[in-house]
Amino acid sequence: MKRIAILGSTGSIGRQTLDIARAQASELKVVALAAGSKNLDLLAQQVIEFKPELICVPSVEAAKELTGQLGCMQKLPEIVFGEDGLIAVATHGAVETLVTAVVGFLGLKPTAAAVRAGKTIALANKETLVAAGSMIMPMAKQYGANIVPVDSEHSAIFQSLSGYKTKDIKQIWLTGSGGPFRTWDKAKIAEARIEDALRHPNWAMGAKITIDSATLMNKGLEVIEARWLFDIEPERIRVIIHPQSILHSAVEFVDNSVVGQMGLPDMRLPIHFALFYPERVSSTEVPALDLIKLGSMTFEEPDYDRFPCLRMAKEVASKEDTSACVLNAANEIAVDAFLKGHIKFMEIPELIERVLNKTNFVSKPNLEQIIEADERSRKTTSELMLPIAQATR
Amino acid sequence: MKRIAILGSTGSIGRQTLDIARAQASELKVVALAAGSKNLDLLAQQVIEFKPELICVPSVEAAKELTGQLGCMQKLPEIVFGEDGLIAVATHGAVETLVTAVVGFLGLKPTAAAVRAGKTIALANKETLVAAGSMIMPMAKQYGANIVPVDSEHSAIFQSLSGYKTKDIKQIWLTGSGGPFRTWDKAKIAEARIEDALRHPNWAMGAKITIDSATLMNKGLEVIEARWLFDIEPERIRVIIHPQSILHSAVEFVDNSVVGQMGLPDMRLPIHFALFYPERVSSTEVPALDLIKLGSMTFEEPDYDRFPCLRMAKEVASKEDTSACVLNAANEIAVDAFLKGHIKFMEIPELIERVLNKTNFVSKPNLEQIIEADERSRKTTSELMLPIAQATR
Repeated sequence: MKRIAILGSTGSIGRQTLDIARAQASELKVVALAAGSKNLDLLAQQVIEFKPELICVPSVEAAKELTGQLGCMQKLPEIVFGEDGLIAVATHGAVETLVTAVVGFLGLKPTAAAVRAGKTIALANKETLVAAGSMIMPMAKQYGANIVPVDSEHSAIFQSLSGYKTKDIKQIWLTGSGGPFRTWDKAKIAEARIEDALRHPNWAMGAKITIDSATLMNKGLEVIEARWLFDIEPERIRVIIHPQSILHSAVEFVDNSVVGQMGLPDMRLPIHFALFYPERVSSTEVPALDLIKLGSMTFEEPDYDRFPCLRMAKEVASKEDTSACVLNAANEIAVDAFLKGHIKFMEIPELIERVLNKTNFVSKPNLEQIIEADERSRKTTSELMLPIAQATR
Repeated sequence: MKRIAILGSTGSIGRQTLDIARAQASELKVVALAAGSKNLDLLAQQVIEFKPELICVPSVEAAKELTGQLGCMQKLPEIVFGEDGLIAVATHGAVETLVTAVVGFLGLKPTAAAVRAGKTIALANKETLVAAGSMIMPMAKQYGANIVPVDSEHSAIFQSLSGYKTKDIKQIWLTGSGGPFRTWDKAKIAEARIEDALRHPNWAMGAKITIDSATLMNKGLEVIEARWLFDIEPERIRVIIHPQSILHSAVEFVDNSVVGQMGLPDMRLPIHFALFYPERVSSTEVPALDLIKLGSMTFEEPDYDRFPCLRMAKEVASKEDTSACVLNAANEIAVDAFLKGHIKFMEIPELIERVLNKTNFVSKPNLEQIIEADERSRKTTSELMLPIAQATR
């Protein structure tokens, strides 16, 4: 019986984690949950079904509302709130594995706390490593915390590396579907609507990551994530477009043997793997891949011209300063603005580029400097966006 | 510095092993060589270049002829002959890894001797496991001998399983190119000439295994080999046709994650891997795979009707008696007859089927019973062939 906690239980990854906990009820015990206030009804249902000991919501008001919805329970769980609450969930004494499935920079502090507590981190929050990889990875080593990636690509690399070390790697083949605009020309992409960008060909995911998959920023953030997770120079991470999303990534070893992990594009596959790591446990909830039904797999080069977000992310990937943190924060603000209809699709990379050009970066930052760089980048992005957003309206 | 011996140094795998030993001269030392008498000139060149301590040839005459050719050497190596000589090479005290690259049943006795001596076996002789897997595998366990497969498919499975155990496997995807007759209809296959069958689309190999690849017997023998090597029921080994020969095989784990190994179709890749196992050593001799240049990978079902050898091998795979040994011996005789122009291509499976139908098998055989079953099968096959061969002439 493995005891788990989830940060972001009402989001896409959080819900799928609970699907697995439901299917594997004799193997997994949900001890603590944290969620935002957008979907308290769902959180209440989750609490009633899984009976965790500790719940975190963003505010005291949300805590009160949730308490009201849990009136039917014989024994109420403890309810905490805010950043301290998130940290309490992340470091709960009974928890072995923390699933960090919150979106964006919000995941950093509780993840850092869980690392210090020596937990195994099933990491679905790539922004943590993008913004603070230089700090988190040595910390994980120091405190003996395992970080098991939940991103399908990084899970694939992690699985392919089984039994081997970073020194055995020649290069990593990081695959990506190419997103909904893979075959669109530049002019058409510039006019892309929100609903076009949300229509991902293979993966069902949350809105923010779906937009990141359309700009290919997601692939760029994954390069940065892989760089920290596997301690490898970004020059040795090769992005490759694979429209079928079956080969989730691969490792080319120094002896030119390539080992890759395959599966249907279903996030429950890497979540299941991370929850049970280092064991392989039989899955009823993840559909099997049939190579014959699949028919064929194809591969092509990414286009850095039509997808400047990928280019920019690859550029900052090799730096050990706050530039990846600044890029990530600018991207979060820009994507949010696009989703609200305030800016156009190609204004996402334009804005990020302007923020990067306007910022002085701090070398080898500590946690405070990372948080400060993040905040300043958000502010700069919002300020630069104001005239664009007004013009678009 | 790893010290190696090679059984079959003048054959295709033997020569490629020496290519790697040449390229990795600071890492590999060739201590002993054994070869047939067909190509003593090449053997003499190999001895002069690699200066092994011990050489084995088939007969005293061949030993004399070789000695004559080595007159230029300052210090002659020890030269032995016959079956005892093969065993002396296989069990040489200084040898850590034995590459068994002889073709056919001949490899069995020296491989068994090397296993008893606790050597690491780089196994390129699949007939050893096909005929005697039920005996060799427990023996390897008992004597602590590692068996590292050199067959590209089994090497792929071995690499994909790294860090995991047989109990973690749901099924094995054993890939095959489909051979030169993949798209031929039955009538055309029946009329196939020797040169058609020798024209393999992807792999450069010896004549016997190339014919086995055309009948798909090779894939069937590989099912039997995999069954013993990975201790898995043959029902969980799924043969899949993959014409590009890039995915060399894959393991589907119980959690529905599929891990596979890829590379160009070049035998030096699995040989290199087996020679350096458990380390990954940088390769200059094996060309790298470029997934983008590759373009696409496709997969299809094998056709058991057009390729009855595959069907028969899969049928005997689940048996723990001498039937696989009998099938293998009948196949060796039939392929040899086909290569000599004595029988037609589709008479290979016809003959094997008749031999299988005529034979009583011995359950859980020991080495003597295996050798006896092999000899009797060869005799039966030759006898059954006589009228066919006469008619064909």
